[in-house]
Amino acid sequence: MSHGGDTGKPAEESDAVAGFTAYRKRMNERILAEPNQVVRRFFALDTQTYQAGALDLKTKELLGLVASMVLRCDDCISYHVAQCKDAGVNREEMFEAFSVGLVVGGSIVIPHMRRAVAFLDELEGQSSTGASAGAAIQPHQHG
Amino acid sequence: MSHGGDTGKPAEESDAVAGFTAYRKRMNERILAEPNQVVRRFFALDTQTYQAGALDLKTKELLGLVASMVLRCDDCISYHVAQCKDAGVNREEMFEAFSVGLVVGGSIVIPHMRRAVAFLDELEGQSSTGASAGAAIQPHQHG
Amino acid sequence: MSHGGDTGKPAEESDAVAGFTAYRKRMNERILAEPNQVVRRFFALDTQTYQAGALDLKTKELLGLVASMVLRCDDCISYHVAQCKDAGVNREEMFEAFSVGLVVGGSIVIPHMRRAVAFLDELEGQSSTGASAGAAIQPHQHG
Amino acid sequence: MSHGGDTGKPAEESDAVAGFTAYRKRMNERILAEPNQVVRRFFALDTQTYQAGALDLKTKELLGLVASMVLRCDDCISYHVAQCKDAGVNREEMFEAFSVGLVVGGSIVIPHMRRAVAFLDELEGQSSTGASAGAAIQPHQHG
Amino acid sequence: MSHGGDTGKPAEESDAVAGFTAYRKRMNERILAEPNQVVRRFFALDTQTYQAGALDLKTKELLGLVASMVLRCDDCISYHVAQCKDAGVNREEMFEAFSVGLVVGGSIVIPHMRRAVAFLDELEGQSSTGASAGAAIQPHQHG
Amino acid sequence: MSHGGDTGKPAEESDAVAGFTAYRKRMNERILAEPNQVVRRFFALDTQTYQAGALDLKTKELLGLVASMVLRCDDCISYHVAQCKDAGVNREEMFEAFSVGLVVGGSIVIPHMRRAVAFLDELEGQSSTGASAGAAIQPHQHG
Repeated sequence: MSHGGDTGKPAEESDAVAGFTAYRKRMNERILAEPNQVVRRFFALDTQTYQAGALDLKTKELLGLVASMVLRCDDCISYHVAQCKDAGVNREEMFEAFSVGLVVGGSIVIPHMRRAVAFLDELEGQSSTGASAGAAIQPHQHG
Repeated sequence: MSHGGDTGKPAEESDAVAGFTAYRKRMNERILAEPNQVVRRFFALDTQTYQAGALDLKTKELLGLVASMVLRCDDCISYHVAQCKDAGVNREEMFEAFSVGLVVGGSIVIPHMRRAVAFLDELEGQSSTGASAGAAIQPHQHG
Repeated sequence: MSHGGDTGKPAEESDAVAGFTAYRKRMNERILAEPNQVVRRFFALDTQTYQAGALDLKTKELLGLVASMVLRCDDCISYHVAQCKDAGVNREEMFEAFSVGLVVGGSIVIPHMRRAVAFLDELEGQSSTGASAGAAIQPHQHG
Repeated sequence: MSHGGDTGKPAEESDAVAGFTAYRKRMNERILAEPNQVVRRFFALDTQTYQAGALDLKTKELLGLVASMVLRCDDCISYHVAQCKDAGVNREEMFEAFSVGLVVGGSIVIPHMRRAVAFLDELEGQSSTGASAGAAIQPHQHG
Repeated sequence: MSHGGDTGKPAEESDAVAGFTAYRKRMNERILAEPNQVVRRFFALDTQTYQAGALDLKTKELLGLVASMVLRCDDCISYHVAQCKDAGVNREEMFEAFSVGLVVGGSIVIPHMRRAVAFLDELEGQSSTGASAGAAIQPHQHG
Repeated sequence: MSHGGDTGKPAEESDAVAGFTAYRKRMNERILAEPNQVVRRFFALDTQTYQAGALDLKTKELLGLVASMVLRCDDCISYHVAQCKDAGVNREEMFEAFSVGLVVGGSIVIPHMRRAVAFLDELEGQSSTGASAGAAIQPHQHG
């Protein structure tokens, strides 16, 4: 989720998105500071998983996104939405990925899709949530 | 989320419940504004699913409630609790549905049941949560 | 699942259904023979859960069926399909319950729905599976 | 499990794979013969979901595959492995998709990955399972 | 949720932890006040489950913790983290239990592990989350 | 799972258990023969996870067992039941671990518990399933 030189913070990086990112970073550091080799190796393996190989980065991030949707993890979805956007996935493609997650996972996925769209809107700098934008993506702040 | 002076607002429709409903409505509109036919058809199908047929509305909403409980989706549970109440499910019946969800899904369902009861209490106009009522059902606002 | 006096075995109780029932019974006895009070109490509570109360038996079995579908447990589905049938749920109602499970749980439920219908067909004495009927519901034999 | 004299059957379409396909087809017909509109529409929507759009067919099938892996449904995995192969996914790409499913879903995915590889081997005409090949992919026959 | 001057409150019992505990207690009382025998018996059975027997208390709480992690329930994780700490599980053992949950359950467990560590840090009186500590463990308040 | 000197195959290592073990071994070799580094590293990490550390081997295997139960994976359960037995877990302890899995995961776990007990019985050389013992644990053969 390195957005390059964001001097002054660009419009598409809202406070809510930044808060989500900061919490992730802080707690990941906390976890990796612990001398548990299995945990550390898992985190390294997780990073390696999404590197381009036979499948390109964009495809792999889309796979991560849909896996996160059907398993219904808001933080994972937010993370992969951001990664997909960085990898060049446009809004129409994002919604097609959402549609696969929705049909495979069922209506139980809908609340997570609502939050995914709110997060995507924040990333794209178009608040979908009016005055209470911060509250809308509040769940993402936690992790 | 301020519970202060809600002029004219009926007791059983708290600000928290209203916030939950408003967020759902706003984001659903956002999603349906997107030109993705699979997503739109899924939402239409979801609505159709709970219409009275061989099984009546009340039974179908109870099915939706228990399915949501065992899959542990707070927003889905809140939604179906409200729909069940509208369909005439009383508190004793609601708890029997909860009990099926609890026994099938196990103790992992308990935190969701706590929030379901807090939401039901809000709907019924009897705050179960004292001064910090808003905080208690805060998760429901998000989706 | 007591079908009354099955002299000569009625058409609707196929060998496959009987095998499923026998395996469940044998292993439940094995489990309850163990001096573990938590397990025994859980089994007793499970039985109590589906007794008629504020909600009638038929509704409760339908709740158990849909919960089993969205959690995708073939044996639980088979059990509740049989219980529903005994409680007077007809085929049209059964399919409406299936439809709720399908929409809430998504396409991942479909393979379980195929086996549920195969099991229901066996119960109703109309083999849906041609010559290899036994193989078709074979998964249910195991538990 | 032998389906009789299959003269002319290509090597990569084993009896086991054919049995799986036949059971799916037969039970799907059985389900769609039922006058339940929600179920029928869901099946139609499920088909529509994987049609090429902003994302191509190959990507969508890979999404379906990984979603099926993390939700751990053998039949869904087998189905999407076959669809992926038809869409031109090669073995190396298939394993990269498996690796995403494995890391996101954890070691609980491993038994399903074993069966996925056995099924892929059958599709590719290289039995991975020695003399008892039929038994190895037996679960896939059921649905 | 302000961490400021907590007069008399021990360092390891932060306001956030206390809020979580209070909400659990209040809603459990609310639930048990309802005349539903299945629910009441389930709660009693849940308590009985973790009593020392052939396995000691510490082992049982660790089992509850890992089960909660792979099922990804933040409140259940927080509860068992606290119970484990009370039963004498030290930080290194806690992380080994986390590592089992992580490897079995996959990367989807990571956000829950972040919150588990934040909660553990609060319990141990070492805020891992800087100025916005309250926000960091906010989810735990709800259940 | 080496049970020592099995002259002519000891009673506690039935054909079904051996078949399960052989299938696992064969397919794992097949998977590890593939040049996918993420998959290989995951398998290595999975092995490392259960090595004695701050927690002993027995405790870790019990954690793996309960995690497998609540996630309802028969093959994983069978594997950890065998590993637990090798690590010295006796039948009473095994049932206490089962009871935690049952209460956390709910009645949906019961069919898996039936198969776990059947597998344990096979391991202990006391067939719980009469004449059709092979059929009873047949699911375990597949993976």
